[in-house]
Amino acid sequence: MKFKNYKSASKDALKIIPLGGCEEVGRNMTVFEFGQDIVILDMGLQFPEEDMPGIDYVIPNTEYLKGKEKNIRAVIFSHGHLDHIGAAPILLKKLGNPQIIGRPLTLEMVKHRVEEFDRNTAKKLKTAYIKDLRQTFQLGAFTLKFFQVDHAIMDAVGVILETKVATVIHPGDWRIEKTPFGRNIIDYSHLSKIKRPTILMLESLGALVYDSNVREEDAVKNLQKIISQAPGRTIIATFASQVERIKQILEFASQTGRKVALDGFSMKLNMELAQKLGYVKIPKGVIIPTDKAHNYPDNKVVIVCTGAQGEEMAALSRIVAGNHKYIKIKKEDTVIFSSSVIPGNERTVQRLKDNLYRLSDHVYHSDIADVHASGHANRSDIKEMLSEIKPDYFMPVYGNHYFLKEAAKISYEMGWAKDKVIIPDNGSVVKFTLQRAEILKDKVPANYVFVDGLGVGDVGEIVLRDRQMLSQDGMFVIVAIIDRQTGRVKGSPDIISRGFVYLRESKDLLAQTRRKVIDIVDKSAGHGGAVNWVYVKDEIRNKVGDFLSSKTSRRPMILPVVIEV
Amino acid sequence: MKFKNYKSASKDALKIIPLGGCEEVGRNMTVFEFGQDIVILDMGLQFPEEDMPGIDYVIPNTEYLKGKEKNIRAVIFSHGHLDHIGAAPILLKKLGNPQIIGRPLTLEMVKHRVEEFDRNTAKKLKTAYIKDLRQTFQLGAFTLKFFQVDHAIMDAVGVILETKVATVIHPGDWRIEKTPFGRNIIDYSHLSKIKRPTILMLESLGALVYDSNVREEDAVKNLQKIISQAPGRTIIATFASQVERIKQILEFASQTGRKVALDGFSMKLNMELAQKLGYVKIPKGVIIPTDKAHNYPDNKVVIVCTGAQGEEMAALSRIVAGNHKYIKIKKEDTVIFSSSVIPGNERTVQRLKDNLYRLSDHVYHSDIADVHASGHANRSDIKEMLSEIKPDYFMPVYGNHYFLKEAAKISYEMGWAKDKVIIPDNGSVVKFTLQRAEILKDKVPANYVFVDGLGVGDVGEIVLRDRQMLSQDGMFVIVAIIDRQTGRVKGSPDIISRGFVYLRESKDLLAQTRRKVIDIVDKSAGHGGAVNWVYVKDEIRNKVGDFLSSKTSRRPMILPVVIEV
Repeated sequence: MKFKNYKSASKDALKIIPLGGCEEVGRNMTVFEFGQDIVILDMGLQFPEEDMPGIDYVIPNTEYLKGKEKNIRAVIFSHGHLDHIGAAPILLKKLGNPQIIGRPLTLEMVKHRVEEFDRNTAKKLKTAYIKDLRQTFQLGAFTLKFFQVDHAIMDAVGVILETKVATVIHPGDWRIEKTPFGRNIIDYSHLSKIKRPTILMLESLGALVYDSNVREEDAVKNLQKIISQAPGRTIIATFASQVERIKQILEFASQTGRKVALDGFSMKLNMELAQKLGYVKIPKGVIIPTDKAHNYPDNKVVIVCTGAQGEEMAALSRIVAGNHKYIKIKKEDTVIFSSSVIPGNERTVQRLKDNLYRLSDHVYHSDIADVHASGHANRSDIKEMLSEIKPDYFMPVYGNHYFLKEAAKISYEMGWAKDKVIIPDNGSVVKFTLQRAEILKDKVPANYVFVDGLGVGDVGEIVLRDRQMLSQDGMFVIVAIIDRQTGRVKGSPDIISRGFVYLRESKDLLAQTRRKVIDIVDKSAGHGGAVNWVYVKDEIRNKVGDFLSSKTSRRPMILPVVIEV
Repeated sequence: MKFKNYKSASKDALKIIPLGGCEEVGRNMTVFEFGQDIVILDMGLQFPEEDMPGIDYVIPNTEYLKGKEKNIRAVIFSHGHLDHIGAAPILLKKLGNPQIIGRPLTLEMVKHRVEEFDRNTAKKLKTAYIKDLRQTFQLGAFTLKFFQVDHAIMDAVGVILETKVATVIHPGDWRIEKTPFGRNIIDYSHLSKIKRPTILMLESLGALVYDSNVREEDAVKNLQKIISQAPGRTIIATFASQVERIKQILEFASQTGRKVALDGFSMKLNMELAQKLGYVKIPKGVIIPTDKAHNYPDNKVVIVCTGAQGEEMAALSRIVAGNHKYIKIKKEDTVIFSSSVIPGNERTVQRLKDNLYRLSDHVYHSDIADVHASGHANRSDIKEMLSEIKPDYFMPVYGNHYFLKEAAKISYEMGWAKDKVIIPDNGSVVKFTLQRAEILKDKVPANYVFVDGLGVGDVGEIVLRDRQMLSQDGMFVIVAIIDRQTGRVKGSPDIISRGFVYLRESKDLLAQTRRKVIDIVDKSAGHGGAVNWVYVKDEIRNKVGDFLSSKTSRRPMILPVVIEV
């Protein structure tokens, strides 16, 4: 009998498969599978690492879903940040446009991104808006419910996925806001009362943050104080998606008789979406176009713009570079970075700050003032969440592997047993039955899929390795024309080189290289008869490579072209 | 009378010219000039930024010193870190090997680096060792004196340069150590009593650090505690130059019956130098070779190694990659990063941590434990230094421009007048006379000098731009052979491409490109007669570029080769 029970129960299994986001920050996407039913949470993108030159962004690998498209009951988007929706245009299309579920602002942002990517396709999306958090969706074997969370963007939502064997709780990205505006502090203890066993999947980006987070209230108060005291204009650089922050700035400006210019395409767009949805009521007359800012006294003007990460084409970079049509920074202007630095952008942002400090005497950023509240939980928030929800299983996700390990350590200290804490990798298949939870031995494909221009996945390791090599010491093309009759080089070989040495100052080196090439060809082919040109090319590649390396200690990529005429 | 005084005094001018280190971290070098006498402080290197692919490192530009070599009375090295001595082999040679002055360990490190760079040349160096800090050197118009400082390396020294018009005080890199081992806390107030006016040049790397620094004593105690409790071996990754830290580990190991293996070429070398100079007495029998570590119980073994920055060839990286001959990490091993992360290495170190957390359950680093004390002063240290020395002029140096600005703000808050605080750029000429201090309008050359392999300064902006371009979308060589008679393409043009697309999967694209090239040539040249090949090549470059961009949204570097036969 026991055997039968086991068999029948083991058929009922929930599989949780993170396709991205569990070994890095970004490219968040999780597959939930129960029998013939699949539900997906998020489709994010990851910004390229430094060893991915030329890559625009990285998206999750969906090979596992090939052939299972018809099983996909829905794709849920937890919120509208790019690391949660950025891959949607490519992946929704690839997966046959399954139903998408999200709160209004989130879905509007997804739709906009889809439209931007491929005109006239957004209307084809099958959307199901979450209008009320008490709504439930039946998605095959899954019952989908929601709960309120705090994050740095409006309409972020937590997700509950009930199945026969276990209930998943996933807040998406989250923080615990102790001083929320206009509502109560969120209490998660109701989630300890839902159908068990429960699995808490928890974004753990802040698992190493011991410091207490800046409170939203303090960040806003500090912003207001700086604006009030600013001798000239105030320029605030923030993320385009910081709708709530911008709303607060608009309200403060309105109360204090100031005008606000919004600068940045996606920022304006997000404000429009939020306004359309009724989330933001912009006080009358407070917004002015950037080109009218000079009509007002400097200390009555606030400019909110994008580009706090040093993005080359964004407003702030253009302002600093002196390329902005309407804004030039003056010494008395105040510049505020109301944002955190996305990992990988540290040096770029440092340079931006250097340049700003040269232009303005009043630059503020998180290093010197609390002008930004992180959207992510810190260690004590993680502790609080665990103790309020008391999940049966804890699965830290969304972060570098070592963040997840540190989050797990927090749970061990709180009493969770090691076999109740699961640390997945990208591609791990975590299987839950009524009997147990386990990580299956075999992973599903979860390697990088690179997006470069119009190409998705066509740039692979080989192309990237070539780019890295080219960037290190450049390249060196040698064109040798061979007389078919004599097997000897005609004239002097052509050399085309880029990124190796400054050619005009390396005439000797080039002359010696030409001589070397002629020698190699003459030696191998000069005796006439059948010539192995593959061998000759290899010889050129190796010997010229060694020669250049001995002279310069550099190894450019050498590409021999041998033409018989 | 006044006029005459002014004239005579204005001839007596001290010029301070930072050739590097005032707009970035690294490449520290300062020129002091008084009449016909020049003294130089430090010759450091800067690690390359992300937009300097293939560059080994960056050194200061010494164009200003051209023709003035005979005036150089000495080069002083404040301490042995690479950002203070790394450019010495190249620059000392270039400047005709002037006398070098430093404390013993520092000069030994300089000599070793010179020897490594150019065998049998270290012995040619004219060295003057500082054996006693009460020593003085007369260097033309300069009187050189010294004072004790704390930094993360032994034999760091502060420098006093007296001239007729002003006295410079420069501690090099420094921190204030509140819990030094075996000596008193350093008090700088004696420097308020030296010949005025005084100019305090102050390394300001920590001008944005509000947190209190980890004390050396706490770092060491925490290390000892972790070693004591380690269930298996302890692997400590730190900088090769952390002689004092290694010394403390050796002493602790000796006291507790443990053995220490040192792994890392430069680390061993520095320990040998320190031992030779009598700075470190290694307790008998405590050091074992790495390949003998397995002869001891795991919890009696401590391995100190290099590679905490994720350097590819260093010990820790090899251990993690499984390429180390003798060390494989076990789950019970403890791994400690006793180091800070050098800016620019953030992502690399994150990856290293990810990999380490997979291998070991006991990884410690600054984020989660105080196992490293910074070598640099924080804000309160800067305040303390200013109030103890009370300089007439304050010149923050050695850091990003915005660090210097923030350091200056500290001094303003303490009452320094703006005209007594000087924020130089690289290449600024700061001129002091008895009457006044000013930054001259014209800067001396201070742009980047790139070192790449054996080349110093031969890689310039053009080569770098090509490398960046090549790394973005690769390159595309088109070889068209033209029949001289007909002006038409013979056969099919050859295409060689790297880093652009995966060629095997792009046959259509290549075929269309070939067709395009034939069209362009035939149209321009197919009518026979004199052909403007420069024009034809431009046409190929532009039209093929546009074509590939329209198909892929990428812009590889296109290099047309046209050969008439």
